[in-house]
Amino acid sequence: MPRQVVILGSTGSIGTQALEVAAALPSEIQIIGLAAGSNFELLAAQIGHWKPQVAVIFDESKFADLKNAVGNSPTKLLCGMDGLLEAATWPDSDVILGAMMGAAGLRPTLAAIEAGKDVAIANKETLVAAGEIVMRAARERGIKLWPVDSEHSALAQCLLGEDPNTVEKLTITASGGPFWTKTREEIAAARPENALKHPTWTMGRKITIDSATMMNKGLEMIEACHLFGVGMEKIEVVVHRQSIVHSFVSFVDGSVKAQLGVPDMKLPIQWGLLGAARVEGDAPKLDLLSMGTLSFEAPDDARFPAIDLAREAMKLGGTAPAALNAANEIAVEAFLEGQTDFYGVTSCVAHVLERHENSARPALDDVLNADSRARECAREWLQR
Amino acid sequence: MPRQVVILGSTGSIGTQALEVAAALPSEIQIIGLAAGSNFELLAAQIGHWKPQVAVIFDESKFADLKNAVGNSPTKLLCGMDGLLEAATWPDSDVILGAMMGAAGLRPTLAAIEAGKDVAIANKETLVAAGEIVMRAARERGIKLWPVDSEHSALAQCLLGEDPNTVEKLTITASGGPFWTKTREEIAAARPENALKHPTWTMGRKITIDSATMMNKGLEMIEACHLFGVGMEKIEVVVHRQSIVHSFVSFVDGSVKAQLGVPDMKLPIQWGLLGAARVEGDAPKLDLLSMGTLSFEAPDDARFPAIDLAREAMKLGGTAPAALNAANEIAVEAFLEGQTDFYGVTSCVAHVLERHENSARPALDDVLNADSRARECAREWLQR
Repeated sequence: MPRQVVILGSTGSIGTQALEVAAALPSEIQIIGLAAGSNFELLAAQIGHWKPQVAVIFDESKFADLKNAVGNSPTKLLCGMDGLLEAATWPDSDVILGAMMGAAGLRPTLAAIEAGKDVAIANKETLVAAGEIVMRAARERGIKLWPVDSEHSALAQCLLGEDPNTVEKLTITASGGPFWTKTREEIAAARPENALKHPTWTMGRKITIDSATMMNKGLEMIEACHLFGVGMEKIEVVVHRQSIVHSFVSFVDGSVKAQLGVPDMKLPIQWGLLGAARVEGDAPKLDLLSMGTLSFEAPDDARFPAIDLAREAMKLGGTAPAALNAANEIAVEAFLEGQTDFYGVTSCVAHVLERHENSARPALDDVLNADSRARECAREWLQR
Repeated sequence: MPRQVVILGSTGSIGTQALEVAAALPSEIQIIGLAAGSNFELLAAQIGHWKPQVAVIFDESKFADLKNAVGNSPTKLLCGMDGLLEAATWPDSDVILGAMMGAAGLRPTLAAIEAGKDVAIANKETLVAAGEIVMRAARERGIKLWPVDSEHSALAQCLLGEDPNTVEKLTITASGGPFWTKTREEIAAARPENALKHPTWTMGRKITIDSATMMNKGLEMIEACHLFGVGMEKIEVVVHRQSIVHSFVSFVDGSVKAQLGVPDMKLPIQWGLLGAARVEGDAPKLDLLSMGTLSFEAPDDARFPAIDLAREAMKLGGTAPAALNAANEIAVEAFLEGQTDFYGVTSCVAHVLERHENSARPALDDVLNADSRARECAREWLQR
């Protein structure tokens, strides 16, 4: 019996790769639900191919276009947040892939958990902004959260069969991004087109800029704290240019485990969708004999202040990580549109964090309010 | 309640390090038995310090010396193979560390397994020569075998929580030994003092020469086949000069796991004695941020033919690995005594393998006979 999968964010980078994973494993994975933000054309094509039970377009203004494009179909078509929530809690589903970008992914992911669904979680914001809430809900329902990014999947794979109380440190690898070999002055002068050239991963624009500032590692550190229930003092980052080792777990006895693979999202997507089961799929294989040389370097806070900002936000806890994340989204957008320079991104985030009025033990509304206030504060700083 | 441990081979390299591990973990490990080959002076000192229930000297001619050296003591003193067998099956013991060199370790290890004891296995010969017998006995009694060398411990650690049927390949790392950067001509002219300079590990003389010929990797490949129940076609070797990554497991889905650590036997010894439990002990910690560069290269069968010989012996199965191991012991001894040149070691082993009359599904006596015949055949070839 294949796993019944709903993909929230099926037209994005993770979503389309998840469908390739599913196509390679028809006896393991059945796609029963699809949801997209606004790309109704690709969603319509996916509906034609996969014939899911349900499909959702979040952007209600595209609902008529979607219906036109799909035409006659047994698939139930829905729109808006209500549609997302219905797909996220779809009765026949075994696992929900949460791959919608931004805050739109948060409520459906939480709804899936509360409905007792396992969640393969590719939406960073969900854990960064609302990690406490999400993890508490997962514990209460006894569901499994499968991380779908290479670093956290690596950590989870290394922790299989191990006692989490024996973890001494989680070390997340970072490619270093396009600016690792540049001076602070060169980085300060970088333009969006420079920052968008990532050495090893092909990803969306927002996450590619996050990789250049290394804020993506900061966000991943916060995620790791939540996913694996450890404090920020147990998380470190090591720069590994080749992106072959995806992360390390160090144990109290001195042993270290690592997970490696070709830099390709299909492996963590498949591992998450199958709930840690391993079958031969569409992911490429790593040839250890021709792997060559792997390098590891300490990060550099002077040139890449984002990691420290994330560390500070996580230590504050409460709604501070939500504010960090929201401010970063606004600042990255501004950088991409030429409204601030490269170090303006982290300066903006630092400013917002300083001004942030923290709420400890926040409810979802507190998180969403902190997110809005931080965006507002970031916009004001950028327009100063 | 600490684990009650008997150490067979307490005066050797692994045995003395095991006692350091035990000294660092008094609430985890209690030494209740010690056994040595012939070093009665060190054994007597160990008895004085650890006050075990039982202690054995294998060399019966040293029994009187041992008794004199120990004097009045509550420790029961024994000698010879009968003594080893009694210590190996000592009623109060939870785990036996099998660290006696050579064929002397085989019968006690097997006796321990048959008595239902968990065995931490540091004696290569046991698995190489009698792997089928040992693994069958372990399965029948439902006991656990914990490998105590860095490579197999690494493989076992990477397999925790994984389905063994999803293993695609086990990749054992090799330092390459002192001759990795030399030409075949230079290696051919190598003398014992050159071969005894190992770049990363400090070990006994026999195993250091095995490292120079890379026969130690051949023996480890055979061990890995038995320990993890896989065919030789699933085992490969990668040369990794830094000896930080101790081995890799590749899974069918494209994921690879590795175990890393400072090159130090205390970690695998402790992990084995504690049966995979992890506590902070005496093993040094690996600093990932200052680890630098790790290199990986394919092995070179032209300069290091031992790996192919081991592959061939394991494919033959039966008593062929026992013959390989015995011939290698004799040939290494001859090399150390200047009776043959460096490539004489592998030529001798190849000759013995060619002459070997194999027995499929051997009993222990068949293995011991094959061992004797191979030694004889090797001696004849060396004196030709």
